[in-house]
Amino acid sequence: MAAAGGSKTLVEIFYDVVSPYSWLGFEVLCRYRHNWSIELRFRPAFLGGIMKETGNQPPAMVPKRGEYMMKDIKRMAKYYQVPLQIPKDFVGSVIRKGSLSAMRFITAVDMTQPQFLEPVSRELWMRIWSRDEDITQPESILAAAGEAGLPSALAQKLLAMTSTPEVKNRLKETTEEALKYGAFGMPAVVAHVNGEAHLFFGSDRLELLGKVIGEKWLGPVPAASKPRM
Amino acid sequence: MAAAGGSKTLVEIFYDVVSPYSWLGFEVLCRYRHNWSIELRFRPAFLGGIMKETGNQPPAMVPKRGEYMMKDIKRMAKYYQVPLQIPKDFVGSVIRKGSLSAMRFITAVDMTQPQFLEPVSRELWMRIWSRDEDITQPESILAAAGEAGLPSALAQKLLAMTSTPEVKNRLKETTEEALKYGAFGMPAVVAHVNGEAHLFFGSDRLELLGKVIGEKWLGPVPAASKPRM
Repeated sequence: MAAAGGSKTLVEIFYDVVSPYSWLGFEVLCRYRHNWSIELRFRPAFLGGIMKETGNQPPAMVPKRGEYMMKDIKRMAKYYQVPLQIPKDFVGSVIRKGSLSAMRFITAVDMTQPQFLEPVSRELWMRIWSRDEDITQPESILAAAGEAGLPSALAQKLLAMTSTPEVKNRLKETTEEALKYGAFGMPAVVAHVNGEAHLFFGSDRLELLGKVIGEKWLGPVPAASKPRM
Repeated sequence: MAAAGGSKTLVEIFYDVVSPYSWLGFEVLCRYRHNWSIELRFRPAFLGGIMKETGNQPPAMVPKRGEYMMKDIKRMAKYYQVPLQIPKDFVGSVIRKGSLSAMRFITAVDMTQPQFLEPVSRELWMRIWSRDEDITQPESILAAAGEAGLPSALAQKLLAMTSTPEVKNRLKETTEEALKYGAFGMPAVVAHVNGEAHLFFGSDRLELLGKVIGEKWLGPVPAASKPRM
């Protein structure tokens, strides 16, 4: 049930821009802010850390699962109306290069310019998961920041912040918080209902999330929303 | 799109009664026969063989994933209105004992008494995944067959068939067919649209299945159906 007295249900989404399913979940929840009585809180965390701590492995480590996942991602993206494309060199772009620098930058944005958190995250997804572009180099990150509307001088300052203990620790803390909720992968969506935290893994439990918070699932593109994507 | 000329879209569900998500998918598809223009084909296969051939592992092998899965199954079962309960000794009942004898019996039913395939499968799920009862012993299997309405003498005959090469080979063949479609776990749902086979893994892609076959998802308990469960 939505909380009484008109207050909104807090829904947190722990995500990493290296994760395509995180992007799908992120966009759909952004749309549902206009349909459901939720306060959506973005929680940038580090998927590499979650996999390491839980002993989980990317699903693509089982070849047949990897093959399926590529098809599944494409089908889901089309149905969810998110312009997601699989990078040509999946292992090189996604697994080997990873997202640590990007997630540190996003964390710096979250700490100091939270109004840019949503568009900066989206632009980084657009780079790696739509246009098959790098997200590890400083110029890549600055380009994404520019697309998101961050003034250049400010983006440079945030980039410098990414090597500070404050930013590194904040990313670690958010990752640890996801682990405490029971996350073993991403996205990890946590709904707070009557003082209880309900974890949903993946972008395919949003109908169930709706049920738990007393809201109706209206498909991935609900009418009241104007999808950015 | 549904096939032209009023013919129904063939949808196959490869399942094993050891798999709780298979039960959820099975029941929901049984309901949707009344809402969607589909010909639903039950394909009993052996999950152990699929895991072995693909190098896949039960998700519970990652402890945090296992913990989540138990909660997820309970939530899904409630929402899907299937009376599923987690067995007390999950590893002993599900992983160690397995389902080979049950799936051979179901295969014998499929080969000779296909009109009993749906209720026999359901009764075996009821035993292991609702009442925490054994499904490996001959008396367990006969009890399930009795609940499904199979005359006792016929059930005895089918039980004797389970040790024949014909039944063993048929179960192997069905399992291999699932593997050919790309399955790496269960349920594996295969929709045949315009000569192309579309694989959906799990019980959480049924909305997407609807999209691919040109039918509308109406939630897990569509109004036109009378859920048996």
